[in-house]
Amino acid sequence: MTEAVQGRRGGGRAGRREARAAAVVERQPFLTRFLTPVELVSTEGLETLEHNADTILEEVGVEFRDHPGALERLAKAGADVDGSRARFPRGLCRSIVTATAPAQYTQHARNPANSVQVGGDATVFAPNYGSPFVHDLDAGRRYATLTDFENIVKLTYLSPHLHHSGGTVCEPVDVPVSKRHLDMVYAHLRYSDKPFMGSVTSGERAGDSVELARIGFGGDLADRTVMTSLINASSPLVWDASMLAAAEVYASANQATIITPFILAGAMAPSTSAGVAAQTLAEALAGMTFVQLVRPGAPMVLGSFASSMSMQTGAPTFGTPEPALVLYTMAALARRLGVPFRSGGSLTASKLPDAQAAYESAATLLPTMMAGTNFVLHAAGWLEGGLAVGYEKFVLDADQLGMMATFAKGLDMSPNGQAIDAIREHTPGEHFLGTAHTLANFESAFYRSETADNASYEQWLDDGGLDAAQRANRVWKERLAAYEPPIIDDAVDAELCDFIARRKSELPDTFA
Amino acid sequence: MTEAVQGRRGGGRAGRREARAAAVVERQPFLTRFLTPVELVSTEGLETLEHNADTILEEVGVEFRDHPGALERLAKAGADVDGSRARFPRGLCRSIVTATAPAQYTQHARNPANSVQVGGDATVFAPNYGSPFVHDLDAGRRYATLTDFENIVKLTYLSPHLHHSGGTVCEPVDVPVSKRHLDMVYAHLRYSDKPFMGSVTSGERAGDSVELARIGFGGDLADRTVMTSLINASSPLVWDASMLAAAEVYASANQATIITPFILAGAMAPSTSAGVAAQTLAEALAGMTFVQLVRPGAPMVLGSFASSMSMQTGAPTFGTPEPALVLYTMAALARRLGVPFRSGGSLTASKLPDAQAAYESAATLLPTMMAGTNFVLHAAGWLEGGLAVGYEKFVLDADQLGMMATFAKGLDMSPNGQAIDAIREHTPGEHFLGTAHTLANFESAFYRSETADNASYEQWLDDGGLDAAQRANRVWKERLAAYEPPIIDDAVDAELCDFIARRKSELPDTFA
Repeated sequence: MTEAVQGRRGGGRAGRREARAAAVVERQPFLTRFLTPVELVSTEGLETLEHNADTILEEVGVEFRDHPGALERLAKAGADVDGSRARFPRGLCRSIVTATAPAQYTQHARNPANSVQVGGDATVFAPNYGSPFVHDLDAGRRYATLTDFENIVKLTYLSPHLHHSGGTVCEPVDVPVSKRHLDMVYAHLRYSDKPFMGSVTSGERAGDSVELARIGFGGDLADRTVMTSLINASSPLVWDASMLAAAEVYASANQATIITPFILAGAMAPSTSAGVAAQTLAEALAGMTFVQLVRPGAPMVLGSFASSMSMQTGAPTFGTPEPALVLYTMAALARRLGVPFRSGGSLTASKLPDAQAAYESAATLLPTMMAGTNFVLHAAGWLEGGLAVGYEKFVLDADQLGMMATFAKGLDMSPNGQAIDAIREHTPGEHFLGTAHTLANFESAFYRSETADNASYEQWLDDGGLDAAQRANRVWKERLAAYEPPIIDDAVDAELCDFIARRKSELPDTFA
Repeated sequence: MTEAVQGRRGGGRAGRREARAAAVVERQPFLTRFLTPVELVSTEGLETLEHNADTILEEVGVEFRDHPGALERLAKAGADVDGSRARFPRGLCRSIVTATAPAQYTQHARNPANSVQVGGDATVFAPNYGSPFVHDLDAGRRYATLTDFENIVKLTYLSPHLHHSGGTVCEPVDVPVSKRHLDMVYAHLRYSDKPFMGSVTSGERAGDSVELARIGFGGDLADRTVMTSLINASSPLVWDASMLAAAEVYASANQATIITPFILAGAMAPSTSAGVAAQTLAEALAGMTFVQLVRPGAPMVLGSFASSMSMQTGAPTFGTPEPALVLYTMAALARRLGVPFRSGGSLTASKLPDAQAAYESAATLLPTMMAGTNFVLHAAGWLEGGLAVGYEKFVLDADQLGMMATFAKGLDMSPNGQAIDAIREHTPGEHFLGTAHTLANFESAFYRSETADNASYEQWLDDGGLDAAQRANRVWKERLAAYEPPIIDDAVDAELCDFIARRKSELPDTFA
């Protein structure tokens, strides 16, 4: 376990800098799971769900809207195309996907030490995505700005528990929609050296993202995958033109995409979890088939975002049992398909970094881990059903991510872990605090939380009687104050800025 | 899913009464798990831990202090007794336990509809245990009183998610130590009709508990098990006289005991989890052997309480990865031994019902469930490392317990669950809200949280902008205001009161 910042009593600014420098060396670029994923559904049950997905693909089909090129590709591959609807003979999508989709891939980071494996026994944590609002204890809830965006990128860079810089960590609404993708990709390249995501709101913006990445990586990607970008379906059973165009750009450039049915159960799918799973698999298979037809072998992740809803108000709900059941089920279906899986995170409907936020986030994150998820978007910061990213929530969530890495190592059965000699040489009734074994394991024995207060009630009162959110408020401010950007070549930075300036001069200012 | 109180907009007092009456009929007396417990450790690893436990029992042995009768029984059964130390030939304890300990048992409740199964695929949730302090948002933290004790018993009675009334839900410090066991057992019998726990602080108090239970159950227990009581070790490797005496009383009366090594890893055992597990198994085997020697076949639960610690301050820490690893490991070891397993709960070191409390509680409760734990003490209310029980924390935790029951049902693969016809008849791009399938599943589709706020930000602000703890504060007050005690025969109540009055007149007032 390494920590970028040891907490608010971490030996002052110099001490924190040292700790951070050490952490940069020691940290793991991604989490490795030593635990077998939990199988919640029987093989027979999974086969039934696969059969149902094929029934949906064959009988109902999937819409590919306003993208004739996609329909042409699908027809050529054997789909039955009628208008914008593509129906697939049973097994066709699966055979196309399994023929060429890689089981795992490396997403290269600007700093090679931060490159991540996506798939297999790896789990990659990326921050919140897509929120128009931000929240912190001082200023409350407000529209996000580019400064907020950069702050979340910086906090992600500083956390050893987040492996990936993410994409639209929040929407910088002070920048025109038509131009903000340039500032977002630049922030990931300039203020971090972890892997990141490109823009997906149009093919043109995806193209700009690829070009910025090319410059940022020294002028030539050499077919390396350096972005993993989020392609969402318009469930039920629709893929829209803008997402398809972005997916096409990325796949053509050998960049990875996360093909994600986005389902509020009861609204965008049936309310029952087995129905959600079959429909999610059908939508994902159709989207992934398209990607493999664009470029066989293009790296790709099967995504699943599924929330339950309040049947009184229709509002999405998080951290409830049903999405957890869907998550375990979809993870198993992705494993059977042989592709990496994305789902979960630290999701909540709460407006505050309070107990609701934490219960719901934990009730999403623990299944995310136990199911063996490979790519975890929204792993830190998510509030209010994704409408806001919270600064304190980010800090609190990241601490939990650190715990997952420790848990995923499983039980240490080495002689030191078994400690049988330590017990053998011990007198019943006497404590182990001063024994050689305890002293030898002192530093590494337990995960050391960055935000929990474990002091006595009296000590806690003396320290101000703060709740977890108030302590997290101190942490993110200290971290941002101590932030120093990673190294970037001046010429590369200048070329990035030139490209962005040129594109901004070409593009109109639009805010929708 | 049934709920005793539908939440703060639940149709006023009359509506709540109706809901409560309905819930009494519909609620499940215990949670049934349809999911296979997660096996985190290989069979080879578990065999090694069993071997290590035998090594500890054989070479180090276990102290049975100030209880010559226990040592006599153990010597007679084949243990090597030296002073207060008993060493056990390899395999002896296991063979004694497996020969006669039941794999599961029924703990009868005063209301037969509330009787619980302990063991197998059943999970029983019981509230917080042992706290000298209480906490609520209005009065803050203060010493607990008998009124607080009764309130927690009432809140437990009212929650459909708690199956068991627990024992020392808090310490009523306004009653002399020498007499409070009488008031505690009376509260469980009078203000609830769910199963409960007896006093364990001495053999005499255990005897009083058995006598009160006998009266409460109509004058004759007829060998029925009506209490499951908590027998803690004085780890490392010590059983104390008072706990042994209480265990002896209960086993003799065919009452169940939870034989629980209580381990702060690094202090009462080595700091490494495999060491904690082996020592826990050794201590539990020794204690369980004693119980089976007192009365072969006496119902018994293997308990494990293991926390990590702050290596800076020595304070116990909760919701960290290491205790979760121990929990999964001990659950598997108990399954192999063929006895019910107790561990976990909603544990936290936080002083408040804040995000720390919720993260840590969830990070304990989810492993508790996934591991297949049979009896869960501290399932609701625990704060501050067990030093306090929180009213708001109780309400928030209980809501999470309800979610566990839904999750544990697993994926519904019935035709209705699969919903393939609903999808088949559906047009891509149109929502499912008004479809026949959604309407048919409207009421039961999703777990309905009692405390989460899923409203829009604006609606939430209009509702007062409350955090989860503030909403929970309203809930427990409404519930206590609406509380009505279960029926008890007047003659039985009079006999209980007579017994208590007589015993109080016999016992001195002591506060230590």
